[in-house]
Amino acid sequence: MSSTALGSVSVDIGLLGKYKRTRPKTNRYCVRSPSASLPQALEVTSVKEKKLTETVRIGVLGASGYTGAEIARLLANHPHFTITLMTADRKAGQSIGSVFPHLITQDLPDMVAIKDADFSDVDAVFCCLPHGTTQEIIKGLPKELKIVDLSADFRLHNIDEYEEWYGQPHKAPELQKEAIYGLTEIYREEIRKARLVANPGCYPTSIQLPLIPLIKANLIELRNIIIDAKSGVSGAGRGAKEQNLYTEISEGIHSYGITRHRHVPEIEQGLSDASNSNLIVSFTPHLMPMKRGMQSTIYVEMAPGVTVDDLYQQLSSAYEGEEFVKLLKKQVVPHTRHVSGSNYCFMNVFPDRIPGRAIIVSVIDNLVKGASGQALQNLNLMLGYPENLGLQYQPLFP
Amino acid sequence: MSSTALGSVSVDIGLLGKYKRTRPKTNRYCVRSPSASLPQALEVTSVKEKKLTETVRIGVLGASGYTGAEIARLLANHPHFTITLMTADRKAGQSIGSVFPHLITQDLPDMVAIKDADFSDVDAVFCCLPHGTTQEIIKGLPKELKIVDLSADFRLHNIDEYEEWYGQPHKAPELQKEAIYGLTEIYREEIRKARLVANPGCYPTSIQLPLIPLIKANLIELRNIIIDAKSGVSGAGRGAKEQNLYTEISEGIHSYGITRHRHVPEIEQGLSDASNSNLIVSFTPHLMPMKRGMQSTIYVEMAPGVTVDDLYQQLSSAYEGEEFVKLLKKQVVPHTRHVSGSNYCFMNVFPDRIPGRAIIVSVIDNLVKGASGQALQNLNLMLGYPENLGLQYQPLFP
Amino acid sequence: MSSTALGSVSVDIGLLGKYKRTRPKTNRYCVRSPSASLPQALEVTSVKEKKLTETVRIGVLGASGYTGAEIARLLANHPHFTITLMTADRKAGQSIGSVFPHLITQDLPDMVAIKDADFSDVDAVFCCLPHGTTQEIIKGLPKELKIVDLSADFRLHNIDEYEEWYGQPHKAPELQKEAIYGLTEIYREEIRKARLVANPGCYPTSIQLPLIPLIKANLIELRNIIIDAKSGVSGAGRGAKEQNLYTEISEGIHSYGITRHRHVPEIEQGLSDASNSNLIVSFTPHLMPMKRGMQSTIYVEMAPGVTVDDLYQQLSSAYEGEEFVKLLKKQVVPHTRHVSGSNYCFMNVFPDRIPGRAIIVSVIDNLVKGASGQALQNLNLMLGYPENLGLQYQPLFP
Amino acid sequence: MSSTALGSVSVDIGLLGKYKRTRPKTNRYCVRSPSASLPQALEVTSVKEKKLTETVRIGVLGASGYTGAEIARLLANHPHFTITLMTADRKAGQSIGSVFPHLITQDLPDMVAIKDADFSDVDAVFCCLPHGTTQEIIKGLPKELKIVDLSADFRLHNIDEYEEWYGQPHKAPELQKEAIYGLTEIYREEIRKARLVANPGCYPTSIQLPLIPLIKANLIELRNIIIDAKSGVSGAGRGAKEQNLYTEISEGIHSYGITRHRHVPEIEQGLSDASNSNLIVSFTPHLMPMKRGMQSTIYVEMAPGVTVDDLYQQLSSAYEGEEFVKLLKKQVVPHTRHVSGSNYCFMNVFPDRIPGRAIIVSVIDNLVKGASGQALQNLNLMLGYPENLGLQYQPLFP
Repeated sequence: MSSTALGSVSVDIGLLGKYKRTRPKTNRYCVRSPSASLPQALEVTSVKEKKLTETVRIGVLGASGYTGAEIARLLANHPHFTITLMTADRKAGQSIGSVFPHLITQDLPDMVAIKDADFSDVDAVFCCLPHGTTQEIIKGLPKELKIVDLSADFRLHNIDEYEEWYGQPHKAPELQKEAIYGLTEIYREEIRKARLVANPGCYPTSIQLPLIPLIKANLIELRNIIIDAKSGVSGAGRGAKEQNLYTEISEGIHSYGITRHRHVPEIEQGLSDASNSNLIVSFTPHLMPMKRGMQSTIYVEMAPGVTVDDLYQQLSSAYEGEEFVKLLKKQVVPHTRHVSGSNYCFMNVFPDRIPGRAIIVSVIDNLVKGASGQALQNLNLMLGYPENLGLQYQPLFP
Repeated sequence: MSSTALGSVSVDIGLLGKYKRTRPKTNRYCVRSPSASLPQALEVTSVKEKKLTETVRIGVLGASGYTGAEIARLLANHPHFTITLMTADRKAGQSIGSVFPHLITQDLPDMVAIKDADFSDVDAVFCCLPHGTTQEIIKGLPKELKIVDLSADFRLHNIDEYEEWYGQPHKAPELQKEAIYGLTEIYREEIRKARLVANPGCYPTSIQLPLIPLIKANLIELRNIIIDAKSGVSGAGRGAKEQNLYTEISEGIHSYGITRHRHVPEIEQGLSDASNSNLIVSFTPHLMPMKRGMQSTIYVEMAPGVTVDDLYQQLSSAYEGEEFVKLLKKQVVPHTRHVSGSNYCFMNVFPDRIPGRAIIVSVIDNLVKGASGQALQNLNLMLGYPENLGLQYQPLFP
Repeated sequence: MSSTALGSVSVDIGLLGKYKRTRPKTNRYCVRSPSASLPQALEVTSVKEKKLTETVRIGVLGASGYTGAEIARLLANHPHFTITLMTADRKAGQSIGSVFPHLITQDLPDMVAIKDADFSDVDAVFCCLPHGTTQEIIKGLPKELKIVDLSADFRLHNIDEYEEWYGQPHKAPELQKEAIYGLTEIYREEIRKARLVANPGCYPTSIQLPLIPLIKANLIELRNIIIDAKSGVSGAGRGAKEQNLYTEISEGIHSYGITRHRHVPEIEQGLSDASNSNLIVSFTPHLMPMKRGMQSTIYVEMAPGVTVDDLYQQLSSAYEGEEFVKLLKKQVVPHTRHVSGSNYCFMNVFPDRIPGRAIIVSVIDNLVKGASGQALQNLNLMLGYPENLGLQYQPLFP
Repeated sequence: MSSTALGSVSVDIGLLGKYKRTRPKTNRYCVRSPSASLPQALEVTSVKEKKLTETVRIGVLGASGYTGAEIARLLANHPHFTITLMTADRKAGQSIGSVFPHLITQDLPDMVAIKDADFSDVDAVFCCLPHGTTQEIIKGLPKELKIVDLSADFRLHNIDEYEEWYGQPHKAPELQKEAIYGLTEIYREEIRKARLVANPGCYPTSIQLPLIPLIKANLIELRNIIIDAKSGVSGAGRGAKEQNLYTEISEGIHSYGITRHRHVPEIEQGLSDASNSNLIVSFTPHLMPMKRGMQSTIYVEMAPGVTVDDLYQQLSSAYEGEEFVKLLKKQVVPHTRHVSGSNYCFMNVFPDRIPGRAIIVSVIDNLVKGASGQALQNLNLMLGYPENLGLQYQPLFP
């Protein structure tokens, strides 16, 4: 066996996520720059002395849903975060093995009701509660807690818009102002300094990641952006609903929430911010027989004189060096199944038959990059850790 | 055609397909006019004396593929068509039970190689062979046979276009001129008189059925028609390909053939004919984990002053009284699973968030209305029978 | 029953179900005798004069569940049965298109609450209600109605056993005595004369069909009958339960109700009756990701001196001429997918590696032969019609 | 945030797999002893100084199949193993992104033909080739390489038996003698010293893990062991076969290889060794619509006087402290979906209705504990590393 010069064991942590990326070898299917990981690699070093002996105590509020379980799955391999509190009102008193048997090997605390939760033993929380109830609960949390909220409650800057789409007035408008929108690759610097992060929805993540760089660079028209999105069923949560039974979902597809899906204002807010204009999109989600996964197929008009190559180059430079957002080689089509279980977003851009138009495809795992994975990426940043800690799961295929 | 001694059975045939439709009761979810079935009802009467004592002997060429099997499934309940010849070169000598165990209860002839086929015992054929090989085989068939060809070989009027998309010159250009395009509800009268029908592709069927009436009525713009289509895997046939293995398909979705799918010229031909112009569409198919089923989600710009209601009314009157094409009640979303196993096309039209735009959704079973069902509908017409014979299978749900 | 003016249609009915079966041709994969259909063919003739001009008015109680919908699907192609009443308490007032969109093309009555049901317009009912509630409702029905009850409420002869397994005393013990157990191929003659038929459960159907003839012929030992059964999810009904969500079922399998499944007493009753002894079986059901379908893999010890060939011959003669129960050719393995959507039971018997043992495999569609199909087969018999009317659906594959 | 006393970063590696297990908290659903991990924890310490600065260079032979890809997925998170060689004859010259797009983010070598492979840069190989070809290739490998062979070629001690089941004489009988059977938890000490490990088949792993301890303790009868096993489709490999197409597999189940499956001699060998007798089992595998996962439902007779509790206690003590084999709490049913993507085997034992009998259920992911995961577990042992390195993936659910 050959020895390497890695020297100190601390690098090992970086190893999991990083060392292969620093090899000079080019990868044929996935664009990235060899030097891209340097800033993060440096960060590892600086973090090392300060933080590697620490444990952050994590609370998961609403731990009996799929996003809560996914937080627990990811944290099973996080070197510094350990779960000390799990709340689930309807399953209070139950163990993790009872609620999520796939996690029985994890030594996790039993579920407690949120009203019985003791936050004195908690440094940071992932809030996986349904929208509506979340505002008041977060308002009541100790101020020193770092919070990543996975609900929709703090995503919309405009609380009037919140009321319009969610049918009730916002109950924590002052917190809304403080909340930072957690689309990591776009708002990384703000997230680092945030106390409360509003974690993006799954559809908005898959749509904004490719579109924001193109809009900022004025490469696509703001009119007639047409988004045909396809989602796995876990996005609908674990609630027992007739329409989500196996018998009702398997072997079929349908559109839903046409023009009325609640992710619309979030998508339009993000794209409008990027364009400094009020943008309206066409957004049609589809529910299909897969547990996880999401594809957004986005049909755009290019600005005059712009080519598909220009779009490609822009996305290439926007995400150069990013660990979790990958522009595939030209002509390679992203598949949802190739990111399943991982925090990756794969994307690509294709010419349309209609001159002047382009087709953008992006895929994520809705429960990881579209929810709990991005949430962890954000909390890592908020606490000064490398953002990939706990996110080393490679996609599960087949 | 050979006569049988079946006697008079006309009323029963009407029973299976018709008698419930003549009830005056309105149906809440599905638009139709109570008088719509009258012309066909009359036809039943006129046909009765002439044909109901006959048996038509059917050949199925390429019977070991899914469309061939589907023909056999449908004909199991056809009162007049009986299969006397099945060809399958690679499975020559095998019984139906060996090739398609779900049909073991049917008393069907063994497979023979096409070169050994005896057409003296055949009145009409369904040609389920792959494109390319079909032209010469059909050229060699006895001239008195009625033929429905399910391949792409006779769909394109322009044989140069055929060569462009299929990479080889057309080998039966004279037959191409004779062939009638078999989109039943649109070309019914021509089909009645045809000897050779080019049965439409599945995507083109699901797309043209809603779009042709709207285009003919000048209700939508011809530019920027964007079609995002989703198909089950049976559309790819029964050939053993790595990319269609269960392990490669289950629990995921991906786009394929972006801008290059071979159904594009067929779609554009049909829409161009309807509009008397050269129309280019954006067409992106997706492969998803379902065995059967197809949804086309179509994004259109309405002509100035036109509303979604106008589109709805146009489709309503276009398909009033049609047995197999159903415009759903307003706001009801078509699901592929609700037409599975049947010859129905369900469709609806929705407002888009972007003013002036509309979203059209149509669903079919790709193997039935998208292939063998429509083929049988056509042959029924070509032979003067009610077009619904053998097509009474209701959708299988769940 | 009300008369209609349908005239004479007898031959056509035979056509759909019968005429191909009378061909002399042997079928390689499926055993049957050419003369087997004669008795039924004769029956067609005798029935013709008496009944073919009639319409039987059908009520479906509990029509919003999967078995109710399946009754409606099958009756769409029944020449004499027409649905005039559908009850569904929680969906009272809704149309069929709202409750089951795949049936929108059918002109069916709206749902009413059971308490508002008018039975004056009904000749026979399918009772698709949950066990427990069924007894009192059936007790209250007009005495002239023919009833097929799909619940478990009248299946167990011994009402003490009912109470033991269902946790409540039986509320209609006098009706229990009258009820005939509706395993059609075994109890056909009793069913013909019955007013109330207790339709078998899906597991018991798939298990008793192969075992009863073997037990009656003393070919297998009564001890250590081990049944490993696998079911699709529709058997669990349409109720919204977390454990039946797509996300909880897809891509996995698990045993459930080990030793405690409520079909056990029904299975043991049937096998005990066949053997004139008290028989105890090992029965382990498994839930797996399919909407429909059921396989029972049954491990038995053969009686001394008995061979697998003996078992095969016994099953062959027991089901010779049966339209819906098919013993496959030797070595051919039944697949659930090859009976999907149909009323068939396919079975076969295989040698075990352990000398003296055999393995029996039987497959059905749990919603058809395991529920609504067999129920219709029974009602046909109870009303003097050929038992295959409305049951001509061939399996849907792929 | 609270500090822990973990001290040195090297523990972090152990952390991923170990530190939660050392907590005193009892876990309700999964039996284990708090002290169980001590031996391995000590091992971590001893290994630390010796090995943590080393890199082991790994070759993956047959890297274009599912087990090869799974090795690559797992090694992505292994701190010491790095892949330097990947062979795939039919895909020679292709990059990993082309062959397995879900691994595009990994910087892996391109595929080479086995004949062009350079082993000078390799310390150990996983051999993922088909049986038959494997023997000669392994015979030709440099003698200093550690080898884990995932094929069946070295599993059977008796080369006559190999010839009988595989239809060809064994070509490396001398290596066969050297090979150690890699059922890790049973043969751990032998594996540590091995150069060539024959990695067990998936069925044999799921069957032997529960049965061997029970047989060794004389708790079950050796006669009439009946195994009904259910497998996901990935076990059939990535070869393009009609019978494994999505359309042929989805929504159905069937038995296959009844009495003739090639895993039979391996299962019987293992159980015979444990019992010092020649044991014959009944083994019936079923193929079902899931990509990964395997359940064995095993029906056994208990020895006179033995109870289900005795079986439970025996399994409990046999696997006490094991990281990857988990006996669930009494009455909790293992689901395949709860181990998907992980190296766990979950098992439990249940009373049968028939007195004196018991039902044992065990579940694994066929590609992980049933193939590549156990292979890695073995190579870790062979090279003196903690056996859980690279195997920290928690199950992916939903």
